[in-house]
Amino acid sequence: MEVKNKHVVIKHHVEDAPKECDFEIKISDFALSVDPGSDDIIVKNLCISVDPYQISRMKRHSSSHGTITAVEPITPGQAINGPAIGKVVASGHAKFHKDDVVWGIFNWAEYSLVKERNIIKKIESFEFPLSYHLGVLGFNGLTAYAGFFELCKPLKGEKIFVSAASGATGNIVGQYAKLLGCYVVGCAGSQKKVTLLKEKLGFDDAFNYKEEKDLNLTLKSYFPDGIDVYFDNVGGEMLDAAIANMKAFGRVSICGVISEYIDTGKRCSPNMLDVVYKRINIRGFLAPDFMNVFEEFYEKTSDYLRTGKLKVIEDASTSMESIPSAFVGLFKGDNIGKKIINLA
Amino acid sequence: MEVKNKHVVIKHHVEDAPKECDFEIKISDFALSVDPGSDDIIVKNLCISVDPYQISRMKRHSSSHGTITAVEPITPGQAINGPAIGKVVASGHAKFHKDDVVWGIFNWAEYSLVKERNIIKKIESFEFPLSYHLGVLGFNGLTAYAGFFELCKPLKGEKIFVSAASGATGNIVGQYAKLLGCYVVGCAGSQKKVTLLKEKLGFDDAFNYKEEKDLNLTLKSYFPDGIDVYFDNVGGEMLDAAIANMKAFGRVSICGVISEYIDTGKRCSPNMLDVVYKRINIRGFLAPDFMNVFEEFYEKTSDYLRTGKLKVIEDASTSMESIPSAFVGLFKGDNIGKKIINLA
Repeated sequence: MEVKNKHVVIKHHVEDAPKECDFEIKISDFALSVDPGSDDIIVKNLCISVDPYQISRMKRHSSSHGTITAVEPITPGQAINGPAIGKVVASGHAKFHKDDVVWGIFNWAEYSLVKERNIIKKIESFEFPLSYHLGVLGFNGLTAYAGFFELCKPLKGEKIFVSAASGATGNIVGQYAKLLGCYVVGCAGSQKKVTLLKEKLGFDDAFNYKEEKDLNLTLKSYFPDGIDVYFDNVGGEMLDAAIANMKAFGRVSICGVISEYIDTGKRCSPNMLDVVYKRINIRGFLAPDFMNVFEEFYEKTSDYLRTGKLKVIEDASTSMESIPSAFVGLFKGDNIGKKIINLA
Repeated sequence: MEVKNKHVVIKHHVEDAPKECDFEIKISDFALSVDPGSDDIIVKNLCISVDPYQISRMKRHSSSHGTITAVEPITPGQAINGPAIGKVVASGHAKFHKDDVVWGIFNWAEYSLVKERNIIKKIESFEFPLSYHLGVLGFNGLTAYAGFFELCKPLKGEKIFVSAASGATGNIVGQYAKLLGCYVVGCAGSQKKVTLLKEKLGFDDAFNYKEEKDLNLTLKSYFPDGIDVYFDNVGGEMLDAAIANMKAFGRVSICGVISEYIDTGKRCSPNMLDVVYKRINIRGFLAPDFMNVFEEFYEKTSDYLRTGKLKVIEDASTSMESIPSAFVGLFKGDNIGKKIINLA
């Protein structure tokens, strides 16, 4: 049986802020059958994750190229892939069967032909909405968990600063920090997001960085005794200001650099004398390196969700056609929380 | 008994590159006796360490102020202190006796009145020249040892880059790295230093950064497969170029920032996307935090010295009057290896 399969491609490399016209929805014929005994698996997407890191893959040159499989370059005209939840439609692989629900790296498409290596996990429990497996129970949650607990080794009572705090990862970091008993301040790009952080997510405080003239003084006012842990997703001037306000033995985890994604000429320029004298530890990291703590993260986080201790913030669209605007919106701060495309 | 005691002071805060005229040699009357039963100890300096970090203490504002006792601000007109080796001339403290040789934080002076807390260690073995206890067996060695082994956890065969490689600390890092079986490239500021690194200290390669137009390309040529460990003492453009050339999971230890010491407006501006995608770990550190590994460092390093595996590079002057020019020279690259004032 053959179907028409919609999928999203870039028309050309994307060098600056992405625009909807950089993308194209293509339709191709797609066979829904596999040869018995082959390793082929056909997955129908139920839910697609839209993440800022994809911009690095869309560039002609990028620090991401050649690092890990999950961020290999995207070729114009070719299907884009990324984290998604799908249902197995047909399988030649003995481990996967029709109607299995799987989390993996699938195309930004209705249907994907994949191999076992594309599948991260079979979803066995349907206790939570499927989309959670892409966010709070997926790579965003793992990024927050690993970057905060594994790398920063925070202690109860420590002072935590989170940038992009209403974003898919930042909001979870802030909530983990509160659950640990830390003092948490987040920054975001609108008053609405600031209100969400303080009123719904329980941040001790939050501010709209767009309204601040001197980030160094802003952070000094929120952290008069200094910052112990900075969870950074933005780089640039915010990173400089955070380093200027770190305490001795402060730790900085960096999982993304929004300021550089769409303008690689825009750099941070931290005072390295602060880094030396305050013995600051700055670490870049990627969640896939922490699959060794996945089960621990998943169990603890599931429990927080069950008991209502962790709130989930999602921003969902519902069609293949909405993917380009959803992606472009990430760089304009349109989304609040995890950006999801629900196709189910 | 009273003597005339020469000591060095700054006339005013030093904000840019230090000049000899920023300093003054003062002479004051100094009593060589202590009250029996007091905690006072009088030390006559035999050897004084002259270190670049002191510039931070001489500034009106500095990242170093308020961090650790050893780098507290220096007040104009007041005696400057720093690592030195002295002989006890008189002691009211039961643990110290006349003619004891001690390593500690004493004044840039002929005589200092000190307390027990100023003394780091009594020198019991005279197997090595006294000056070694200020360099290779003192804080420079400990900085090299802790920053390289403890923080970077290098493996045999890894590729190591050392800046300020002929300096007091860098030369030891490079030699430790060679003893571990690493590939080591150093940079320095003159052809004479480059020759020393390659011919006397056994570096695999070395270059004069002043003759390089594009440090990024320079490092790419010396490390076509990337750098595993960068031991940084200079910051600025060299740090940016090193980060651009790091391998995945590369480690950067930063013990000093020569580029910022005399021009705080001069900053590095590394590509943080490299830091994220290559999961780079950047750590500022100070040797005094690693006194827990001092004995281990001291034993291993003594053994390397005994067996001739580690070479010692010192640059000695011999009078109190030479301290200002020795210190000023550190920022002009005048010294090769550890800068010492031998007064014995």
